[in-house]
Amino acid sequence: MDFRSDNIAGAAPEIFAALQKANEGTAASYGADDISRDLDRRFSSLFGTDCRVFPVATGTAANALALAAICPSHGAIYCHEESHIQVDECNAPEAFTGGAKMLGLAGSDGKLTPEVLARALSLGWRGSQHNPQPSALSLTQATEAGTIYSPAEITALARIAHDGGLHVHMDGARFANAVVAGNASSADLTWKAGVDVLSFGATKNGALAAEAVVFFKPELAESFLFRRKRAGHLFSKMRFLSAQLAAMLENDLWLRLARNANARARQLADGFATIPGVRIAYPVQANEVFALLPEKIRAGMAADGALFHPWSDDGNGAVYRFVCAFDKTEADIAALLRSASRAAG
Amino acid sequence: MDFRSDNIAGAAPEIFAALQKANEGTAASYGADDISRDLDRRFSSLFGTDCRVFPVATGTAANALALAAICPSHGAIYCHEESHIQVDECNAPEAFTGGAKMLGLAGSDGKLTPEVLARALSLGWRGSQHNPQPSALSLTQATEAGTIYSPAEITALARIAHDGGLHVHMDGARFANAVVAGNASSADLTWKAGVDVLSFGATKNGALAAEAVVFFKPELAESFLFRRKRAGHLFSKMRFLSAQLAAMLENDLWLRLARNANARARQLADGFATIPGVRIAYPVQANEVFALLPEKIRAGMAADGALFHPWSDDGNGAVYRFVCAFDKTEADIAALLRSASRAAG
Amino acid sequence: MDFRSDNIAGAAPEIFAALQKANEGTAASYGADDISRDLDRRFSSLFGTDCRVFPVATGTAANALALAAICPSHGAIYCHEESHIQVDECNAPEAFTGGAKMLGLAGSDGKLTPEVLARALSLGWRGSQHNPQPSALSLTQATEAGTIYSPAEITALARIAHDGGLHVHMDGARFANAVVAGNASSADLTWKAGVDVLSFGATKNGALAAEAVVFFKPELAESFLFRRKRAGHLFSKMRFLSAQLAAMLENDLWLRLARNANARARQLADGFATIPGVRIAYPVQANEVFALLPEKIRAGMAADGALFHPWSDDGNGAVYRFVCAFDKTEADIAALLRSASRAAG
Amino acid sequence: MDFRSDNIAGAAPEIFAALQKANEGTAASYGADDISRDLDRRFSSLFGTDCRVFPVATGTAANALALAAICPSHGAIYCHEESHIQVDECNAPEAFTGGAKMLGLAGSDGKLTPEVLARALSLGWRGSQHNPQPSALSLTQATEAGTIYSPAEITALARIAHDGGLHVHMDGARFANAVVAGNASSADLTWKAGVDVLSFGATKNGALAAEAVVFFKPELAESFLFRRKRAGHLFSKMRFLSAQLAAMLENDLWLRLARNANARARQLADGFATIPGVRIAYPVQANEVFALLPEKIRAGMAADGALFHPWSDDGNGAVYRFVCAFDKTEADIAALLRSASRAAG
Repeated sequence: MDFRSDNIAGAAPEIFAALQKANEGTAASYGADDISRDLDRRFSSLFGTDCRVFPVATGTAANALALAAICPSHGAIYCHEESHIQVDECNAPEAFTGGAKMLGLAGSDGKLTPEVLARALSLGWRGSQHNPQPSALSLTQATEAGTIYSPAEITALARIAHDGGLHVHMDGARFANAVVAGNASSADLTWKAGVDVLSFGATKNGALAAEAVVFFKPELAESFLFRRKRAGHLFSKMRFLSAQLAAMLENDLWLRLARNANARARQLADGFATIPGVRIAYPVQANEVFALLPEKIRAGMAADGALFHPWSDDGNGAVYRFVCAFDKTEADIAALLRSASRAAG
Repeated sequence: MDFRSDNIAGAAPEIFAALQKANEGTAASYGADDISRDLDRRFSSLFGTDCRVFPVATGTAANALALAAICPSHGAIYCHEESHIQVDECNAPEAFTGGAKMLGLAGSDGKLTPEVLARALSLGWRGSQHNPQPSALSLTQATEAGTIYSPAEITALARIAHDGGLHVHMDGARFANAVVAGNASSADLTWKAGVDVLSFGATKNGALAAEAVVFFKPELAESFLFRRKRAGHLFSKMRFLSAQLAAMLENDLWLRLARNANARARQLADGFATIPGVRIAYPVQANEVFALLPEKIRAGMAADGALFHPWSDDGNGAVYRFVCAFDKTEADIAALLRSASRAAG
Repeated sequence: MDFRSDNIAGAAPEIFAALQKANEGTAASYGADDISRDLDRRFSSLFGTDCRVFPVATGTAANALALAAICPSHGAIYCHEESHIQVDECNAPEAFTGGAKMLGLAGSDGKLTPEVLARALSLGWRGSQHNPQPSALSLTQATEAGTIYSPAEITALARIAHDGGLHVHMDGARFANAVVAGNASSADLTWKAGVDVLSFGATKNGALAAEAVVFFKPELAESFLFRRKRAGHLFSKMRFLSAQLAAMLENDLWLRLARNANARARQLADGFATIPGVRIAYPVQANEVFALLPEKIRAGMAADGALFHPWSDDGNGAVYRFVCAFDKTEADIAALLRSASRAAG
Repeated sequence: MDFRSDNIAGAAPEIFAALQKANEGTAASYGADDISRDLDRRFSSLFGTDCRVFPVATGTAANALALAAICPSHGAIYCHEESHIQVDECNAPEAFTGGAKMLGLAGSDGKLTPEVLARALSLGWRGSQHNPQPSALSLTQATEAGTIYSPAEITALARIAHDGGLHVHMDGARFANAVVAGNASSADLTWKAGVDVLSFGATKNGALAAEAVVFFKPELAESFLFRRKRAGHLFSKMRFLSAQLAAMLENDLWLRLARNANARARQLADGFATIPGVRIAYPVQANEVFALLPEKIRAGMAADGALFHPWSDDGNGAVYRFVCAFDKTEADIAALLRSASRAAG
């Protein structure tokens, strides 16, 4: 009963199989192998537009390198005040941009609104030598609160950003969960809505360690090879990163895994709703459930061996986070819910 | 009638005289001259404690270098969301710290409160490898809103900061104005209240260009010589920076100049109070007056040739900033007030 | 017949087995899993001294992060002018140190001498605010030229470095090859000889992607957790990095693989020696052979499908590099030599 | 008898007069004043081409900011191994470029040759993701050895640089001394010979503290306003920097001062030539004399109160540097020579 994160899970069998296959024979290093060279084509096909794709091993690397490609050291990056890039990456975006300014904006359910963004951009900084130059908007999809932006919401935000001269980045550590959450396609949620560069996550969704920086505007990728190497994120045996990404796209494995994760979160949220005293904190739209638990229930579940992290305490009580990894089963959720019911008495 | 800033003024005659005197003969360069070598003693005497003092030419350099001395590249700096270091230094603090995180906190009248700071520090970041490490608190004295912190207020904030493992920086671009504003001494407002390093401003107060980074904990200054040089802020003919600072301290010139500036702001605020329709936005405690002006009055004053900057519009009307430089006279203020009265009709 | 690099090889079967085993069940993320937590013990046992060990995925990350731990942004790093950190890491050391100075020194066979180092350190920079502060010496073991430093050579260099206030780093991307090349132990070649921090390579030696930064002075590792995360090099599913490293140490797999690689290089060099017109450029001490090939032989081998990189042309003819990966067989070398003999006519 | 550097001198009377004049009245800050706004015109007129000019206060700032404008963080800068930017700026170029690679090349008399540069650029780094990207050549004029490059020499070097995709920077801390040393104009020595950006020095030549970054290709200056501010090098009372630069150009003051400095160096070198045992180390072309002094003579001069710095010891004896500041007189030199003669016995 381990719900601490998606990354407490291992890797999917298909990923291992792909690695084993990639291990056959010798291959050119540093991305010149056949699997790596085919990634642009694969992702371009998925998104229905010309993409430039760069594998890296961690989400933090993907985010920070993507942001560095669209924000100079004298620039400002606008993001949610609780976003991963602002709170959980130990200044990696500042590091790789050479010291850009990160401006965290407020917003409920982990989401930014056009109003908040427009206000932040209305200060007259552009062109003034004193001020950080507004350069990038970063959206998280699915958000830190397990919610998702609709294409219309992204479009509205991206329009304001583009009008202000900003580029738009999407932190898609849980992009797969967002795609399967609604009726929108990968394209609808990204370049068609104004996203310029995407951190495409695979690790949380069942890879060992593989993410891709996907540029929808190839000209933004101009210096990326150098940026990645300079950051120590160029793998010599790149085929092993690329094989994970290729396997994810093969036969829509990535969507299949995410669909299960989301379904498990839905199952969990529905179950929680029947337990007296438990309250869901944010809309459950992806693979995370944030639940306000009475201490008695929390303690009972913990005593049963359930693992989950405290998230926040908003004064109304303590909220806990339950993340459903790609490989959680219906039985896993049922067991957790039984524990919660028992604890509720 | 130029009230756009303190830095539209030139330099005080005493400063020029000091420069002329410093120009006699040859002198060792890069800070080894007699005037420069005497600065530690002068400032230590002023503050009544052992200080290490480093002249630089701009306030941004002083702030960013001071912050770099107390915050690592993986650290976080807490400051007011409207502070100069956050808004008006084009990412210099990020640059010189190597990419530290700047976290702007809200607060009325340009001031931070213990509550806001304590909340920001309560997130459990310290020691967690994911999070920026809380490292520095920066207070502005006088603030961007022309208000001042009392020794008790600084003490309360510094205590929270120190308890959280942070060092405390004070941006004293208008420190002189703060000192003469109350009954507190330079020591009361700094190291006795918990300030570890001060950006001591002289430029706004009548120097050509001279600021000093003053360390109250000498061990924090260990690498400062290298940091300053690496930033291009080591002057070869350092005597010309040091002479300005020495002249400021000589016979309390700095306090005399600041006292005049503050008195002029008081005169202006009192005058505005008698003009129908004009409202003072923040308490006038130093040398700045923020006034809500009806458009008719603003336009009339502008037509008379008065120069002043728009500051904000809080929905209740447009606020304008009037800064009284060190050399403004009673007659200057009277003329400005006459213009305002005339415009008010 | 692929001899372009060690990294054109895949991963050893034992490494895959270890990954499969590590994939069982859930595990705490970000290094809190059991395998990761056991690494300090494993490496401390190997080296016979207390070590702090941090897995990363690439050699460039290991080197640049290790150097950042021992060299401030105003520091200087001394290394061989042809070393990987100077030539082949696209400024990663500069990036992670925040802009330290890299000073490449000359030396034959890829090696530095005490004389050259002593001369470089004799310029009186230490303590002078104008100069980069001498902070680190970095040695490559095995070197870029396929040679190795003896314990006595390392000791002599490290003594000069330590006397000058520098820390000593070893780039051990091919450390395994160096260990099996002589009679010296891992300890003899590192901390006993004065090495303070080691980049311990596993990727070239049969891992998918795994390196370890090994600190022999734990106090140098103080900020390393933050540095690694800030660089995007903290893996969420860390167990997959750690499992590779643990498998390498298990039953001396790393030495077994390196021994084979070195033996194949010896076999190749001995074979080349019998072919008229072929000349060995540097002493063959690890798993690399640098050979001066007449154009006829090069062309013939290439026509047979042999892959290898040109290295340099010193005026006496073109030198080519042949790297023997961990999994090359006697038959592989024999085939290559047959091709060379045939081409030689 | 102070010959330690040009910067042991104070400022010329004309500079003080200009500062006094600039002090009249209020003026827009941060470069919007009339004097500052006129600098582009003044320098464009001087150089006979369209220039963008940015005043800063120190030579290190000018150099490092200029280099940052033409070299990305993954780039490489080629310079003389003894150049100021490599040896004497405590990594400022690395700091402001965000960690570019500095590559010091050898060359006698402080000068680079086309052969050495061509060889350094022949390594095939351009476009390879592993290598620092060749981006800038920096020449010092006059050099650290007091020699000057002819227009033909600059042209030859700049052509190789441009052919390799590099921009060309000139460190002109003593540019005035170079201009008056030969028959070449300011234009001949810069943009006509292929220089893209110049650090135009005034401090050593009689200013208090003023340098200018002069772009001959305006497009390179695009982000310079932000870079300068971010580095803390934007002066609020900019008129005081600009006034020094304007005064230098007025009536060719800068050339007059430099002409005297060079003449004094010539006088000194000629005098030294008549003293047995003294040998001139480098050609004396600007305002510096490097002389090999027997210990007896050195000691005697020191005993007479002469101040000068040791420079190097090439095995043939100790070389000392004598710098003639802008305000040295014939009598000053004569006195120094008398001392040397006396000491020679």
